Amino acid sequence: MSSWTDSLTMDTMAKERANPPFDVRKMSIEHHGSENDLVKKEKFMLEASRDPVFYSADIYDLTKEQIRERTMQRIQRLAHYVTSEPVDDFQKRMELMSLLDPGLWTRLGVHYGLFLGAIRSGATPNQFSYWMEKGVIACQGMFGCFGMTELAHGSNVAGLETTAHFDGTTDEFVIHTPNLGATKWWIGGAAQTATHCSVFAQLIVNGKRYGTKTFIVPLRDPKSFQLLPGINIGDIGKKMGRDGIDNGYIQFTNVRIPRAYMLMKHTQVTRDGEVREPPLQQLTYGALLQGRTAMVADAANTAKKALTISVRYAAARRQFKSDAKAELETQIIDYPIHQRRLMPLVAQAVAFGYTSLELQRLYEETSQALESLEPGDPSLDATIEKLKETHSTSAGLKAFCTWATLETIDRSRQACGGHGYSSYNAFANMYSDFAVHCTWEGDNTILALQSGRFLISAFQDALDGKKQVSQGTMYMNDLDKVLSAKCESNEALDTLDGIDRGWATVAAHAVKKASEDYQACLKKGRSREQAFEDCSQVRFVAASVHTAGYIFRQFRSAVERVEKSDDGVREHLELLAKFYGLWQLEEKAAFFLRSGFVTPEQLDFASAKVTEYCAKTRTFAIPLIDSFAISDHVLNSPIGRYDGDIYREYFRMVRRNNPQLKEHPYFERLIRPFIERQLPDQEDFDEAIGIDDEIEEIKQDREEAEAEAKAAAEDAKEDAKEAADEGKK
Amino acid sequence: MSSWTDSLTMDTMAKERANPPFDVRKMSIEHHGSENDLVKKEKFMLEASRDPVFYSADIYDLTKEQIRERTMQRIQRLAHYVTSEPVDDFQKRMELMSLLDPGLWTRLGVHYGLFLGAIRSGATPNQFSYWMEKGVIACQGMFGCFGMTELAHGSNVAGLETTAHFDGTTDEFVIHTPNLGATKWWIGGAAQTATHCSVFAQLIVNGKRYGTKTFIVPLRDPKSFQLLPGINIGDIGKKMGRDGIDNGYIQFTNVRIPRAYMLMKHTQVTRDGEVREPPLQQLTYGALLQGRTAMVADAANTAKKALTISVRYAAARRQFKSDAKAELETQIIDYPIHQRRLMPLVAQAVAFGYTSLELQRLYEETSQALESLEPGDPSLDATIEKLKETHSTSAGLKAFCTWATLETIDRSRQACGGHGYSSYNAFANMYSDFAVHCTWEGDNTILALQSGRFLISAFQDALDGKKQVSQGTMYMNDLDKVLSAKCESNEALDTLDGIDRGWATVAAHAVKKASEDYQACLKKGRSREQAFEDCSQVRFVAASVHTAGYIFRQFRSAVERVEKSDDGVREHLELLAKFYGLWQLEEKAAFFLRSGFVTPEQLDFASAKVTEYCAKTRTFAIPLIDSFAISDHVLNSPIGRYDGDIYREYFRMVRRNNPQLKEHPYFERLIRPFIERQLPDQEDFDEAIGIDDEIEEIKQDREEAEAEAKAAAEDAKEDAKEAADEGKK
Repeated sequence: MSSWTDSLTMDTMAKERANPPFDVRKMSIEHHGSENDLVKKEKFMLEASRDPVFYSADIYDLTKEQIRERTMQRIQRLAHYVTSEPVDDFQKRMELMSLLDPGLWTRLGVHYGLFLGAIRSGATPNQFSYWMEKGVIACQGMFGCFGMTELAHGSNVAGLETTAHFDGTTDEFVIHTPNLGATKWWIGGAAQTATHCSVFAQLIVNGKRYGTKTFIVPLRDPKSFQLLPGINIGDIGKKMGRDGIDNGYIQFTNVRIPRAYMLMKHTQVTRDGEVREPPLQQLTYGALLQGRTAMVADAANTAKKALTISVRYAAARRQFKSDAKAELETQIIDYPIHQRRLMPLVAQAVAFGYTSLELQRLYEETSQALESLEPGDPSLDATIEKLKETHSTSAGLKAFCTWATLETIDRSRQACGGHGYSSYNAFANMYSDFAVHCTWEGDNTILALQSGRFLISAFQDALDGKKQVSQGTMYMNDLDKVLSAKCESNEALDTLDGIDRGWATVAAHAVKKASEDYQACLKKGRSREQAFEDCSQVRFVAASVHTAGYIFRQFRSAVERVEKSDDGVREHLELLAKFYGLWQLEEKAAFFLRSGFVTPEQLDFASAKVTEYCAKTRTFAIPLIDSFAISDHVLNSPIGRYDGDIYREYFRMVRRNNPQLKEHPYFERLIRPFIERQLPDQEDFDEAIGIDDEIEEIKQDREEAEAEAKAAAEDAKEDAKEAADEGKK
Repeated sequence: MSSWTDSLTMDTMAKERANPPFDVRKMSIEHHGSENDLVKKEKFMLEASRDPVFYSADIYDLTKEQIRERTMQRIQRLAHYVTSEPVDDFQKRMELMSLLDPGLWTRLGVHYGLFLGAIRSGATPNQFSYWMEKGVIACQGMFGCFGMTELAHGSNVAGLETTAHFDGTTDEFVIHTPNLGATKWWIGGAAQTATHCSVFAQLIVNGKRYGTKTFIVPLRDPKSFQLLPGINIGDIGKKMGRDGIDNGYIQFTNVRIPRAYMLMKHTQVTRDGEVREPPLQQLTYGALLQGRTAMVADAANTAKKALTISVRYAAARRQFKSDAKAELETQIIDYPIHQRRLMPLVAQAVAFGYTSLELQRLYEETSQALESLEPGDPSLDATIEKLKETHSTSAGLKAFCTWATLETIDRSRQACGGHGYSSYNAFANMYSDFAVHCTWEGDNTILALQSGRFLISAFQDALDGKKQVSQGTMYMNDLDKVLSAKCESNEALDTLDGIDRGWATVAAHAVKKASEDYQACLKKGRSREQAFEDCSQVRFVAASVHTAGYIFRQFRSAVERVEKSDDGVREHLELLAKFYGLWQLEEKAAFFLRSGFVTPEQLDFASAKVTEYCAKTRTFAIPLIDSFAISDHVLNSPIGRYDGDIYREYFRMVRRNNPQLKEHPYFERLIRPFIERQLPDQEDFDEAIGIDDEIEEIKQDREEAEAEAKAAAEDAKEDAKEAADEGKK
């Protein structure tokens, strides 16, 4: 009767791959930017899957303490590659590590990205050589952490309260935590790994404050790992995810460091206590860009990971029969509503991938321009303009891509029903680990507002007739035309160009609204800062609409760069790009309606198209997911397995990680006393004590006593009366 | 220089409470439905906070194993109340438990709600007495679990594959798991607690299948807790949240139970193997309703819990100065964008609270109607109608309220920045624990579709002239007028009635669209089921818009029931109701625009109003949050403390749960070997082995040999030539 067999899901998955309508390998190369990068990733995945240090099937059951040790072992393995392979390769490897083990990525990133990054950007050449010789590159004799945030101060770096007093008598700085709120907090690596910390503190010389500077402060003796005098470090303990990082707090109590341990590339303090400040504001944008670029890449990769699992499971899982006569239940991926749940997210993940490649390119271009910049360079202004734009673009992308990916993870989990809730299928950790991306390196809401601020000023420039040269804001150049654009027909709405024009129009409207509100605030006499605060909601909305359009444009450009051929790649990417653009149009439909770009009927058409593209994408969903090229080892999720053998492997994984015990851990101690307990019986107490009879007796005694007293009083009254009468006589 | 003091946050919080614009106690009574219920909740919170079994400050660091033991201790404590307090009180207590310890709520709920519920609804009177005497009420000698879902079968109950063959020779059923996919999976309580299971299995008598029925199957000997013959149980292990429940898998291998252990209220199997099926479909809606009603209450309560933390933190936390001359940094709750992040969610949580009270009322009304129903009752049809409607309403509410609350938790976390990511501030567990609400007792998407299906048929009825009598769908009664309604002015948009009419209009349009698409599918020759599948997206949208309007209407009705008085309660609730209605209008603006109910300019007005209401709500946010009446013990989050002493208590909690260790757990083992390792030096190998010189020598040797060979060949050629020449001579 039952048609279920153990190999059913594998057969199903094989069928899904039988006739891919495009060349899967070529599609995969497209997603990865180049064959070279794809091959590298495959090499790294193979190495990780065979390396016992990267064994991961037990990871979901490890305690925080165990995960931290495992992470330390992995750090040692990765340090090997730092010193033995080209920087570009190592960065690619780290991108993969972020997908495989986000806690590891962070713990190592704290040393290489933040601590070493602080030295790179803040040290003089001699200082840099000094720390190089100390062993900072290979973590020899040292491991760094990054001491910026404090318990009561996160984003406001200028408001940090840790102090660095210069003591001219000994040529030292005294690093000090003045109050509880100034305790360094969330410092990754501080609790168990770091020997040194790049501490952000208020420079104070002869009683005068010079703002926040960076100081390298030794924390532990690298030979014994004992805390140095004046250092108090504790473990911050349990957090939502990324248990592999040992975040800690640090309190400094009059800790002395040599003067030369202040990073002095920008501001110098001389032996005599003279403070030399730099003539120009520091260009610190660069460091921020790197983090955001990496996070957008991580958003794209993680979305693809989540969807690889949920889409494969949707193909393998069967539930209910659409047709009562069918032999098998229906694959859930065949239900239109399930397609609606997942397919748009697949198109979005592909869009994020291309956006990430473009941001990577922008970042490299900008970094090179910055590095080659000489003092007095005539291209300085142009470079700063470019930097500002890249900065704003990356801010918006970091915010909206990480939000969307967090949502993708949770929707993927929900699309897998109960099995999505099991830790062994990866979503629980993926969500918890990823969530912090929305908060660190700039809270997403604040970053979106920064992007909105840039858009307002670009719009103002455009109004003033200054041409926008960057691809991102070029739509502002012909404002009258853009603002009044309308979609001419349903057909036009189903073209890359038609959709693109729609996004230009709604973005221009949203930015115009923000800009006008801002100007209105200024006219009311508000300061620039107040005006920006007052119109923060419209600024936020402008950034949101602009960024959605920006992402669509990256996808479109990428598609149009793909060579035309009969391998089906370009054709299917074009379909996905239109799908993404129309789905986002539907999601943000109010902007399209109110700008007048689409009519209600055209909106209906767009919605119907989205449903149609959901169904089309379903037909090649498995080959498309395969082209994301994420190994089973990196997925670490039985229901997302390549071969479709989901139930057997899920069952095996659950059993392996939860061996059946010989003895119940707490039956004798807790359960037996519970299920064998005697229930107290309230009535027994009453009878045993005989309290009710007694209460009755007390009542009777009282009544008798009262009656006697009353009678006595009556008698007395009678007597008195008699006596009085006698007296009268 | 620094203005930070330890008591700053407490002073700030005290100021926030100095002049509440409404009577906070009366507001609190409003939220709780009655003073009686509020007082009860306060009593339960006090009891829990003093009970050592409910000590919770260490909970975030417990392992899964420890949490399970803790939960077992708490179960014993609660079982005391089951047998000693009225059912209504115990239900209120459980509602609080769900907020305090969701895993506990579930583990106990599995026995009382599901296992006992299955017996209540499926047992004959004699069977019910039998299990009562066995001890089911007080968990004496037994604890139940609920064996419905299987590894390959979740929602499709009719498709479950576990079999129950009747063996007439012994008068027994044989319970059997025929394949891996039929393994009972996710069974809460199975792994460590349960002695009995209510197993859903296919009844098979004399080779004929009669569908899924329920059988009580003993799993363990309650005296030894050893598994009974034929039972294989394992632990399902780690999941996203609710570690306190011991979910397990169960495989039955020819397990025999007495015939009388099949629950026979509806279908009976006689001694002779005759199967008597009930004449009518079973009314099983009732059981579903109870779960959903509880989950909507939990959604409202949990949203209030999350917001209590994030709003208090927003008041206590200061970051950046809006005015450079200000002595203190600005409270983050004073930034307009932060108000936008949290205040609408506060209004929504209040709306959910009233919706939950109404659903509770509906549920009780419906249950009573069902219980008092006699066979042949003339009110049967009306009751079934009512039941269907309550069913649909509760389905939609369960889906959209639990989704919105999950989002509220995460937005609250993000609004708390880094400290929101620390487990000690409660969001991490709150999110993980709550997430499953979107999946169990009906996946949210599927439930929303059920609601959409009901709406389509109600709309059809309305078209056919059948008056809708329930408050939920009454807006369909005057369709022409409702569909063409327009908002006459901005002023009208700022009234409860104006907003209500707007929701009626957009809901009617959304349901109309779904209904028309459905009819169009039927006309194309699709079956009813196919047509419903085809238009599932519009069905989903219809349910979403309808439900938002429904919630607004509950809020409005509740406000209008509040007595007019000068205590400020009604006035502020009215403000919140308008706020919620307009914010949701803004969120779903596309529907309002495309229905023509609002113009783009009116939409701008609504958005500006929402921003204004955000600012207004901020002025009384702390007293409002206080009126939610959630104790510090239940919050278990230092940054959400009532007294505002957030940093000191957060610091204390982190230290208490992460004591500083005397010795580093893995320095000697892992860190020392790492930072003191010798780097392999590639050049050394080359020199040590002298490989390059050797390669050069090999080359020279080869060249010499080749040269010699060549010379020899030349010589030979020369010789040959000479010989030939000689021969010619």
